[in-house]
Amino acid sequence: MLYIGIDVGGTTIKAGVVDADGNILFKHAGPTGLERGYGSVIQDIATLGLSAVKESGHTLDEVKAIGIGIPGIMDQRTGVVPFCTNLKWHDVPIIEEMKKYTDLPVYVDNDATVAGLAESVKGVSAGCSNSVFITLGTGVGGGIIINDRVFTGSHGVASEIGHMVTVDGGEPCTCGKRGCWERYTSATALIREGRRLCAVKPDCALMQSVDYDIRGITAKHVLDLAKTGDPDCARIFDRYVHHLCVGLGNLINLYDPEVIALGGGVSHAGAFLLDAIRARLHDYVFFKSMPYARVELAQLTNDAGIIGAAMLGR
Amino acid sequence: MLYIGIDVGGTTIKAGVVDADGNILFKHAGPTGLERGYGSVIQDIATLGLSAVKESGHTLDEVKAIGIGIPGIMDQRTGVVPFCTNLKWHDVPIIEEMKKYTDLPVYVDNDATVAGLAESVKGVSAGCSNSVFITLGTGVGGGIIINDRVFTGSHGVASEIGHMVTVDGGEPCTCGKRGCWERYTSATALIREGRRLCAVKPDCALMQSVDYDIRGITAKHVLDLAKTGDPDCARIFDRYVHHLCVGLGNLINLYDPEVIALGGGVSHAGAFLLDAIRARLHDYVFFKSMPYARVELAQLTNDAGIIGAAMLGR
Repeated sequence: MLYIGIDVGGTTIKAGVVDADGNILFKHAGPTGLERGYGSVIQDIATLGLSAVKESGHTLDEVKAIGIGIPGIMDQRTGVVPFCTNLKWHDVPIIEEMKKYTDLPVYVDNDATVAGLAESVKGVSAGCSNSVFITLGTGVGGGIIINDRVFTGSHGVASEIGHMVTVDGGEPCTCGKRGCWERYTSATALIREGRRLCAVKPDCALMQSVDYDIRGITAKHVLDLAKTGDPDCARIFDRYVHHLCVGLGNLINLYDPEVIALGGGVSHAGAFLLDAIRARLHDYVFFKSMPYARVELAQLTNDAGIIGAAMLGR
Repeated sequence: MLYIGIDVGGTTIKAGVVDADGNILFKHAGPTGLERGYGSVIQDIATLGLSAVKESGHTLDEVKAIGIGIPGIMDQRTGVVPFCTNLKWHDVPIIEEMKKYTDLPVYVDNDATVAGLAESVKGVSAGCSNSVFITLGTGVGGGIIINDRVFTGSHGVASEIGHMVTVDGGEPCTCGKRGCWERYTSATALIREGRRLCAVKPDCALMQSVDYDIRGITAKHVLDLAKTGDPDCARIFDRYVHHLCVGLGNLINLYDPEVIALGGGVSHAGAFLLDAIRARLHDYVFFKSMPYARVELAQLTNDAGIIGAAMLGR
């Protein structure tokens, strides 16, 4: 059987045809155009998905289901998306809308959840019953696989791992709380710490690397300078790894997965990041003489959304 | 079918015969006597369990399995207990030892896990697929039920919720880390804060309530004074509830259960504690307009260990 997988982002909708092993047979994309409202966006989601089958040379008879990954949350009981900030959706009846265009079963879930599923089917956590996928991007999202299945809890809100509080009373978060993990482990956190550095040390290497315009600081600037041994950025990176390990220790305590896969922009720091985590994580784990999760880089990157969405229907 | 459930504590071994609905048909107990070494203790575990069947008026033919709850962790792959601090056990081959005395299947798990299972079968979280049980005692333990089954992760170390870090850099913990949740939410935390109060305010009501001997302070002293409106203990309780809610918010974010059941000594504060949590928890939850876990008091208290252990074999 085949599966349609659709990855809906703020600017692009990607759709693909995927086989039962998670191989993409065909994929294409179109603009999201979210200013048109959810009705038109969902029509395009359906059209892109269904036309992908035709263009792949297969027929709809071979397709078992359509899966959709969205940058928000899904209420599985009602078929409604209560929130999807990046798409500016609020209480969108996505299942009902999709039914206008197809009789195929439609499955929808959060994009980080879907990427976690993709990694567990065909990526770095393939073959693991329990795994955690983490996106270290503008925010920090999570995809939790328990007993070979996506885990989103009883109300669809599990796996908001970025909003786990690790520093009570710490940095204020967009969610209204303080000290959420993503305030310390997102790309945004590296940028904030970079700017703070420049504020107190306006001649530092980081400031020079952005031609003295702190608006230009990215996580990559900080990471690249840390890699080359710049002591200021190395210090930021050291604190970053500390906070990452605090949360990873918590996730190991709570989910005890076989693999924790790191994705998102910060994970492009690659072995530099991975080695730093692996060298220190042991100190943050509760049962120090027991085996615990391997931390790895995610493998599927851009295709994870299509593959994982497709696998929702498997 | 019937099930033998055994609750092994540092001073007492309790054994019972339990039916498939979680009803105790017979129970009795004996001293643990752990100074004799694990061989003798495990022999007593087997003897107490098997004799309970006889004394209940049933026969071993009716018994499907033996379940054992221990105050430590169990490696399900090896059948060995790597750690059990309260019993002073280290790498104890409990399954192999039990096989000397019975051919019945033997299941072993952590006592908080087992109590969580009991609550999900016959207690406050009965009928819930996903629930979390928390013991607020000397430490803080957890029992996680996911998809109607005990969840202990890939290496048996999941649900160490007391050692989730919520205050990075905070109070030093027995585990070597700082800021573990149990440092703020155990009975031990209330005692510590009570002592600190007495140190700076040696004429406070708490000090009077223990006849000016701070060694006598218990969590109950602090809670009782908070209940009567003593402003110093009310302040300690207020901070206690704050820290409790930080961790409960994290558990809701990560596990999204239907019910969180509170057990252990501190939970005897009853409605006073529950009302305080319920009044404030909303501020600590990420998706504020979505439904989230009900927080309840555990119901089974002393019998949870026997019932839950028995239900491991169901």
